[in-house]
Amino acid sequence: MVEKEISQAVISRLPRYFRYLGELKDNGVERISSKDLSLLMKVTASQIRQDFNNFGGFGQQGYGYNVEYLHNEIGNILGLDQKHHLIIIGAGNLGQAIANYMNFERRGFIFKGIFDSNKELHGKEIRGMVVQPMEEMPSFIKENEIDIAVLTIPKSAAVAVADKLVQCNIRAIWNFAHVDLTLPGNIQVENVHLSDSLMKLSYNINRFEPEPADNLE
Amino acid sequence: MVEKEISQAVISRLPRYFRYLGELKDNGVERISSKDLSLLMKVTASQIRQDFNNFGGFGQQGYGYNVEYLHNEIGNILGLDQKHHLIIIGAGNLGQAIANYMNFERRGFIFKGIFDSNKELHGKEIRGMVVQPMEEMPSFIKENEIDIAVLTIPKSAAVAVADKLVQCNIRAIWNFAHVDLTLPGNIQVENVHLSDSLMKLSYNINRFEPEPADNLE
Repeated sequence: MVEKEISQAVISRLPRYFRYLGELKDNGVERISSKDLSLLMKVTASQIRQDFNNFGGFGQQGYGYNVEYLHNEIGNILGLDQKHHLIIIGAGNLGQAIANYMNFERRGFIFKGIFDSNKELHGKEIRGMVVQPMEEMPSFIKENEIDIAVLTIPKSAAVAVADKLVQCNIRAIWNFAHVDLTLPGNIQVENVHLSDSLMKLSYNINRFEPEPADNLE
Repeated sequence: MVEKEISQAVISRLPRYFRYLGELKDNGVERISSKDLSLLMKVTASQIRQDFNNFGGFGQQGYGYNVEYLHNEIGNILGLDQKHHLIIIGAGNLGQAIANYMNFERRGFIFKGIFDSNKELHGKEIRGMVVQPMEEMPSFIKENEIDIAVLTIPKSAAVAVADKLVQCNIRAIWNFAHVDLTLPGNIQVENVHLSDSLMKLSYNINRFEPEPADNLE
């Protein structure tokens, strides 16, 4: 689709642009300059222009960007104009939290099924989906044209389940298990390591020690 | 503590080093060269050396790095040798998932309390913590020396709650609400936007269209 190879660093920033432009649009803003967008998003205007130039620049800078147009274009680049069918593997709290998050559906990510190896969860209903045993997964993926699997299972089970998903011709895995999945090149993986961001927070707390407290009693 | 200003990009990579080194250590590996570490982690050896040079380099390259020493040092840099007291605000599925994730405690992140504005959840027990009303939060923070608040509440409530937390002299907010919190400079914030990574996955799926399927029936 896009001919030029765009760096993953640029791609990583697109959802944030999309989010801010969506809010501007909802607030009735029609045009915005790269300078105002940079102030709002706390990145440099030159970064914004460089990022956008990867996609042709999105219109004349002199007049600012057309917010709605830019929001749509970035959404299309992100593939949000297309529908994706997802399954969740792991019906614990995290799996349930993701299943219940309405905004994903709004962006075209449709949850079709949820699976768990724990028999006690089978039959439980989560947002209209009945938790199914793992054995049902391969046929379900085929019948429901599932392209994304969300892994919310412990690290110990994740690699074996991912291998199974590869056999099922899944196209992408959104992985919350605490292990980096490395899969064949045609399968896309996003590893989400929640504790990584908590550790970064911990570093920054220690880095910025508070002033001696004046308000101690 | 650290005199030189280290870029947040470097800091963002430290938890991943910490994770890989922990696994090597658990597997009994005593030393590893930057080259072998680079193959394992799929980053360049020069990136690793550059990152480590920010902290003095961590020992002689010729012999490789001492895995246990390096793991400990990076853990200390991340502040994992210290205990942090946390509260969770929002006792829904995501808040419960985080409360139940044992690995955080192992790293010194101790969950002390959980709060929600929903009366129906008050009194419910989550991993030994009783869900409390929001009104109890300020005194609880003070009495339990809470330094980190985890926000697992909708976007609409997040900004007001964050302001309240600032008044309570919280030191850091780990924010899962779908809005970038910008707070006074002495308060550390990590915004975790789950849908951003899902959108990146969506981009990459579209970017790498599958080969024409040979296995269609």
